[in-house]
Amino acid sequence: MNNTENLAEHVNPWKRISSKVAYENPWITVFHEDVLNPNGNSGIYGKVHFKNLAIGIVPIDENGMTWLIGQYRYPLNQYSWEIVEGGGKIGIAPQESARRELKEECGLVAGELREIVRSHLSNSVSDELAILYVATNLTQEEAEPEDTEMLAVKKIPLKEAFTMVEEGKITDSMSVIALQHLKIEWLEGKLILP
Amino acid sequence: MNNTENLAEHVNPWKRISSKVAYENPWITVFHEDVLNPNGNSGIYGKVHFKNLAIGIVPIDENGMTWLIGQYRYPLNQYSWEIVEGGGKIGIAPQESARRELKEECGLVAGELREIVRSHLSNSVSDELAILYVATNLTQEEAEPEDTEMLAVKKIPLKEAFTMVEEGKITDSMSVIALQHLKIEWLEGKLILP
Repeated sequence: MNNTENLAEHVNPWKRISSKVAYENPWITVFHEDVLNPNGNSGIYGKVHFKNLAIGIVPIDENGMTWLIGQYRYPLNQYSWEIVEGGGKIGIAPQESARRELKEECGLVAGELREIVRSHLSNSVSDELAILYVATNLTQEEAEPEDTEMLAVKKIPLKEAFTMVEEGKITDSMSVIALQHLKIEWLEGKLILP
Repeated sequence: MNNTENLAEHVNPWKRISSKVAYENPWITVFHEDVLNPNGNSGIYGKVHFKNLAIGIVPIDENGMTWLIGQYRYPLNQYSWEIVEGGGKIGIAPQESARRELKEECGLVAGELREIVRSHLSNSVSDELAILYVATNLTQEEAEPEDTEMLAVKKIPLKEAFTMVEEGKITDSMSVIALQHLKIEWLEGKLILP
């Protein structure tokens, strides 16, 4: 099995025969590709390329409170409570995008921003990359929501957000990953909460 | 803010004006839709519908060992170590799909299968739903990999898989979510590991 591993990690076993853009909008490009699969048999692959990074931020204040954003997620046709999230343009430092989202959605200015996790959200179909942060030393200013957004904002204890994940009340992958990461830091004594 | 919340949770603030299929293959359908956004302004939405559930399984044996699957992820153009994953057909019980994947990829038969998390992996663009399980009371039989797959399988201590997540060596969202969840159970004494 080790040989297989070593070979597989260094060689792309897929061969692309042809590629065409099947759909494009300002956020994604969908490619339809003819391929030879790892066993050399011909097949197809529909690939969704994301034009932006997915940025997520968990703000934590000195009282151990965080901010959750509630919004209706159009593709799910369902309401969702989440951490602060937004797109990060390629070519702009992700930290800068994180600070912008935090200001837009919560009116918060972060004294400190710490990256906690990077994750590929849906790697069987897309190349979407999420970069997740914790924001601390916060200053409250005015929020500046975007035109397309109708956001609810609620400030709750971070520990309560941990519980929402455990109870399945938060299902968004970026939120689950960031909050579980912070719960582990807290359980291991690396994150101190009142 | 409470009024906003209560209103927002009950009403879909998006209005669909038109919808057409922009791309379809056996796994996804991409819809291009003209919409009115929550503020009543016209816009578009590109929506990726997943035809299958995303099923993920963490097998754990009596020695606290788990199995990781290594494969080259075509959309990422990158090699990825992950938990056992596969598609779950709508209309088939997800537990059944989980047992099938576990047998195919690792040759493992699960005496017990416990659901741990459900997560929407990429809800700004898709409706992909992941259902994650822990499998225990395992019996080893023969693996039956699918035609398209060239998989490496490695058996390692579950605790080592936790470390791979923390070190960023596992980035797949389903794997990160399932392994973080199990680490929390372990830290809280709900999961006993040798």
